[in-house]
Amino acid sequence: MADGSDKSWILMVTAQSPTNIAVIKYWGKRDETLILPINDSISVTLDPDHLCTTTTVAVSPKFEKDQMWLNGKEISLAGGRFQSCLREIRSRGTDYEDQEKGISIKKQDWEKLNVHIASFNNFPTAAGLASSAAGFACLVYSLAKLMNVKEDQGQLSAIARQAHLTLQGSGSACRSLYGGFVKWAMGNDPNGSDSIAIQLATEAHWDELVIIIAVVSSRQKETSSTSGMRESVETSPLLHHRAKEVVPERIVQMEEAIKNRDFPSFAKLACVDSNQFHACCLDTSPPIFYMNDTSHKIISCVEKWNRAEGTPQVAYTFDAGPNAVLIAKNRQVATLLLQKLLFYFPPASETDLSRYKLLRLCFRISFAWLAFLYLEISYLIGDKSILKEAGIETMKDVEALPPPPEVKDNIPSKNAGDVSYFICTRPGRGPVVFSDEKALLHPETGLPK
Amino acid sequence: MADGSDKSWILMVTAQSPTNIAVIKYWGKRDETLILPINDSISVTLDPDHLCTTTTVAVSPKFEKDQMWLNGKEISLAGGRFQSCLREIRSRGTDYEDQEKGISIKKQDWEKLNVHIASFNNFPTAAGLASSAAGFACLVYSLAKLMNVKEDQGQLSAIARQAHLTLQGSGSACRSLYGGFVKWAMGNDPNGSDSIAIQLATEAHWDELVIIIAVVSSRQKETSSTSGMRESVETSPLLHHRAKEVVPERIVQMEEAIKNRDFPSFAKLACVDSNQFHACCLDTSPPIFYMNDTSHKIISCVEKWNRAEGTPQVAYTFDAGPNAVLIAKNRQVATLLLQKLLFYFPPASETDLSRYKLLRLCFRISFAWLAFLYLEISYLIGDKSILKEAGIETMKDVEALPPPPEVKDNIPSKNAGDVSYFICTRPGRGPVVFSDEKALLHPETGLPK
Repeated sequence: MADGSDKSWILMVTAQSPTNIAVIKYWGKRDETLILPINDSISVTLDPDHLCTTTTVAVSPKFEKDQMWLNGKEISLAGGRFQSCLREIRSRGTDYEDQEKGISIKKQDWEKLNVHIASFNNFPTAAGLASSAAGFACLVYSLAKLMNVKEDQGQLSAIARQAHLTLQGSGSACRSLYGGFVKWAMGNDPNGSDSIAIQLATEAHWDELVIIIAVVSSRQKETSSTSGMRESVETSPLLHHRAKEVVPERIVQMEEAIKNRDFPSFAKLACVDSNQFHACCLDTSPPIFYMNDTSHKIISCVEKWNRAEGTPQVAYTFDAGPNAVLIAKNRQVATLLLQKLLFYFPPASETDLSRYKLLRLCFRISFAWLAFLYLEISYLIGDKSILKEAGIETMKDVEALPPPPEVKDNIPSKNAGDVSYFICTRPGRGPVVFSDEKALLHPETGLPK
Repeated sequence: MADGSDKSWILMVTAQSPTNIAVIKYWGKRDETLILPINDSISVTLDPDHLCTTTTVAVSPKFEKDQMWLNGKEISLAGGRFQSCLREIRSRGTDYEDQEKGISIKKQDWEKLNVHIASFNNFPTAAGLASSAAGFACLVYSLAKLMNVKEDQGQLSAIARQAHLTLQGSGSACRSLYGGFVKWAMGNDPNGSDSIAIQLATEAHWDELVIIIAVVSSRQKETSSTSGMRESVETSPLLHHRAKEVVPERIVQMEEAIKNRDFPSFAKLACVDSNQFHACCLDTSPPIFYMNDTSHKIISCVEKWNRAEGTPQVAYTFDAGPNAVLIAKNRQVATLLLQKLLFYFPPASETDLSRYKLLRLCFRISFAWLAFLYLEISYLIGDKSILKEAGIETMKDVEALPPPPEVKDNIPSKNAGDVSYFICTRPGRGPVVFSDEKALLHPETGLPK
């Protein structure tokens, strides 16, 4: 440890981690404590420029206890899962020395140093876009960097797998430790050592794909994925058949499809697997409904188009909520997709394409200062350049969109307001470390900036 | 045949058949031509006083061709399935003699006589309440009575199984040949001879049950059950597991539950089996959605209540559409159920509890007369006495309903207009023959009255 002469130093690391979307779904654990899944899963990492978590972790002899701030608000660290995650990383820490700053930390010192953690999502957590996957991945990654952990990414993924702060985290964080296309192998070892993430391909391997996420308005209270998958394991007769008999073959086919950039196979597998996951939710007792009528309409829109074209243009997949993640085979298809989506789901009257929306208004009395966090929300966020490519600049352009040709005989109704907004993104990179300039904690106080 | 001296006679039979609702679902055929299912199913026959088809069938030497009128409108009999059904029954006809009227028909004469058929549903066909099940059962039953067929009900059910006039009919008509609780055995014989309906118990065996049907408003175009189940058989990996591994055990348990009037087991089995059928629809490619957000809300309402009571009060089951069929364990529970349903789903503003609604306005030019068919639709049809028992006489009574106690902490939103209307009914009898006074065909012309 710092030799006692100076206790004012703060050592910090800031990292950014992406979120991910499964295309072969994880649903069900064989071990609730170790978070071991009943089947392999495969995901696509989403571009952190559009959806990510940034986390700063710091240690200092002057910190009196472990503390964490999520999106600017302090949260409790009482949960056993967080403590066990922290313990895992501390035990893997190695010696660290920075002579210039006078910092010298021995392997055994890490457990004596309290940590401060500040984490921020660049997208609304309420959107149900697996923000916890990015969050836990970022936490484990930044803590490991801070404590000079030598383990490789795969071994770190085993820690991220078990990282639980809230009921929302359920294991899929481990897939966010890599960019591109990632498999979470279920493993065989009863202690979970081989239940880790493996990168199948980098984001550069298949860089034509464009991802459009429809954030669907919903008033329904959703079942958390942790309790949902436990209930499915306990009550669904179909889930076990899926995990044992259906998924193994799909994993092989999906790996092959990704390797060959075979979009038709990729799309067919992603769609049927998303549907089968939701089928198992429905087969749960009591049944779990994550998709709603809007989700169903989006599926119909894509299915009709794919059928009309004779070969899949777009894949859809839905996680534990009503939001649609649509993967278009290339930029041109994504542009057409956006036009169709805006035709069916124009903004509600009180919204417009470039409206500012107050997202959070935090009044943190404890720090005696006001924090007003405004987030710009237009009806399409992320890679906005696609709007221009689709010829959409004003509401008039949206209103002028023609009905999709595949439904011209039977013009469908418009569903204004059913989609809150769209996000345009793409497959992206894994976690990266930022310089201290981007830290979320103050270099001298160790408190949120 | 009538000996030629008098060709003016008309011989007719009028029968009434019930519809039925499956509590262990039929979904999937192993033989599309013979309509042989991939699993046994069990249904409850619904009281024909509230939901039934009445059919008059007639033969006469003066009829120039086979003709049929459905709800007053002539329909084509060109379909091969109808012809093969008619052929089956004609071939089973036996000698008939009525000396008083001078009618003498030999076994071999039936195929030379043309038939007139008039059929009428006492409920809106658009409601998607298996009107075809009642219709085909009634057709087969009345034709068999007319042609003096000696086969028993089980053998007739094998003919009803194959009766298809439209895409809507898919085999379940065979279960409408009995009252009470009915099993359709899938059978083993490749020619289908043992794929027949069997009565498990009469309606008197368990006469406490009360059935409330919520006819759910829907703008979605639905997949017909015939094409839906074909697509499921071809594409759903879960359906085959269901048919082979899950349903056989449920059939045994459901037979036992019915035998013992064991409502908790009956309700649990009915609910999980309905959900599993819809799960297999979702696992179909492209996926089939029969339930909508309103269906999901009704399920949540029942699930919450059942959980709060600690033991099932109400079972729910959904066929190939969004309508909920709710089976309450007794009259008292049904009254409470109705109050809860009316709390969540009050009538839309433009409806009221006793409004008359013009349902059909038929102007049949061919007969040079106007037929105005008015059907009284209130917001609850069928056994209306339950409204009074629930203390509901006016819209004010509906508005005054308190939130169900099981959701008091989290008062749910009301969903006016999501349900078109409710039907209150009970388990009921099988087909019966009516006297000629109730015939739908004119005794002298053989045309619709």
